[in-house]
Amino acid sequence: MNLVEGVLSGSRIAISRAITAVENEYDEATAIMQKLYPHTGKAHLIGITGPPGAGKSTLTDKVAKEYRRQGKTVGIVAIDPTSPYSGGAILGDRIRMLDITTDEGVFIRSMATRGSLGGLSRKTADAVKILDAAGKDIIIIETVGVGQSEVDIVKNADTTIVVMVPGLGDDIQAIKAGILEIGDIFAINKADRDGVDRLNIELEMMMDLNQDKVSWRPPVKRTVASMNQGIAELVGAIDDHIRHLHQSGELETRRTERARNELLAALDEHIGRYVLNKLNVSGRFDSMVASVQKREKDPYTLVAEIISSMLR
Amino acid sequence: MNLVEGVLSGSRIAISRAITAVENEYDEATAIMQKLYPHTGKAHLIGITGPPGAGKSTLTDKVAKEYRRQGKTVGIVAIDPTSPYSGGAILGDRIRMLDITTDEGVFIRSMATRGSLGGLSRKTADAVKILDAAGKDIIIIETVGVGQSEVDIVKNADTTIVVMVPGLGDDIQAIKAGILEIGDIFAINKADRDGVDRLNIELEMMMDLNQDKVSWRPPVKRTVASMNQGIAELVGAIDDHIRHLHQSGELETRRTERARNELLAALDEHIGRYVLNKLNVSGRFDSMVASVQKREKDPYTLVAEIISSMLR
Repeated sequence: MNLVEGVLSGSRIAISRAITAVENEYDEATAIMQKLYPHTGKAHLIGITGPPGAGKSTLTDKVAKEYRRQGKTVGIVAIDPTSPYSGGAILGDRIRMLDITTDEGVFIRSMATRGSLGGLSRKTADAVKILDAAGKDIIIIETVGVGQSEVDIVKNADTTIVVMVPGLGDDIQAIKAGILEIGDIFAINKADRDGVDRLNIELEMMMDLNQDKVSWRPPVKRTVASMNQGIAELVGAIDDHIRHLHQSGELETRRTERARNELLAALDEHIGRYVLNKLNVSGRFDSMVASVQKREKDPYTLVAEIISSMLR
Repeated sequence: MNLVEGVLSGSRIAISRAITAVENEYDEATAIMQKLYPHTGKAHLIGITGPPGAGKSTLTDKVAKEYRRQGKTVGIVAIDPTSPYSGGAILGDRIRMLDITTDEGVFIRSMATRGSLGGLSRKTADAVKILDAAGKDIIIIETVGVGQSEVDIVKNADTTIVVMVPGLGDDIQAIKAGILEIGDIFAINKADRDGVDRLNIELEMMMDLNQDKVSWRPPVKRTVASMNQGIAELVGAIDDHIRHLHQSGELETRRTERARNELLAALDEHIGRYVLNKLNVSGRFDSMVASVQKREKDPYTLVAEIISSMLR
């Protein structure tokens, strides 16, 4: 298959077409992923998440550039919380950063958040695997750390960076708390703003509370991504974390967990789809929906009936 | 079953225990939902979503109070983006609003966003059904409109209110766009702030673009929830929307769609779980995970093998 060979040789067009196939659920998508899968597992996956307005895109770009300076190739998958109305603010940001988008060693792809959830999670994972198979050394997954889905996406990374910013409101603080536990590294971006010391102290205090439970204490790094400040130090912290993952055996644990999650996701998706197709062909599904709506039957009883009739 | 009878009679303790059963996936949860399901479908479901900091909790409380003033009973399900670290900012807000939490006609429940995604969506839907079966006239689902999961949750409501706020940054604007299409009504909250006219104009312009596609043009209402301003008008707009839903047949369409989604969700969840249990009992699942991790097999091929061996 030409497309698969193209991806494996690192062709930008092939990578792009493969991700499009996955994103749009083309028929050949599964076959492509089956052939690419054995070539995955070599890249180091970095998740970057944080609240809206934390400057994640700029930070992602600067981290990517730092890795390029070290001679490494980089793939970026950005989960883009935009709709057809806006045309994509993040994409706009990317286009302005011409020095990175014209670099052959960097491949950037935005994924739309529209459509089904499990779908987004799997499609992002598949896009990451395509970039992995294409030989990218570092793959950065950038997402807004607010929804559980987005958190679930980044937490499958090897190293997760949670980006904070001083001086956001209370509501943001609450959200922040929800993503604290997935951070391997904290970056306080826009660290030239008021409130940076307070935020730093708060983070360290929370880490103190959690200290005896973990073998890795997440470092807190200050950055001003727009001025490229603190980026080399942040990448240094990522390198430290990679060493920790290898030495502690944690990398193996995380990757077993990821393999398990991948298998579960594939199972959920394909079995549901298979059963639904069978029910649709026979017209049974529509009549089931009608009986649910009329409250003649409940969904739970119907599904139990489907299971006992279709599974052995 | 006592608990089911308790819910049907509107007992707060029974409602609370039923939601806890659903949230923690107790064994009896499915049986409870099966028995309650025939009693659902009477409440009007209102989704309230918007970016962090828009003042959704306060608005929700004021809308609830307005309905109480009209003699209607209200259930509130709040999707709470907090973690064990924080203890729950929203819960804190609720506790401060003593006048509403001590009102016997209002039942408020926060759902944790931790845990699986599909899980959250289904658990929220089940909590709503419990409140529906308990006879609440109005059920408000309040969630942060950033993640796709949260958007998916509110869009199953009969009437969805998107709450905006003047003067948020660019990143927020991008997110805002992602939830525009699900709004039946727009509330510009904190409308005493600068930028309210500009936001109002922007919203109306977007609506103009979309006008010929829809039979209902979402009204834009200005509120200052903290001062109870504009709340009666907002509830008036909800009443208008309810009339529109009935007259246009759209209510039927939406509820068919909801029944379909419920059935699909139950299907996905239970079939996956059934298959997984079978694989776990035989120890096959762990060996599959190991072979995926070693790249001996890919998840897609394995799942195809499971389907052909287990389904008829």
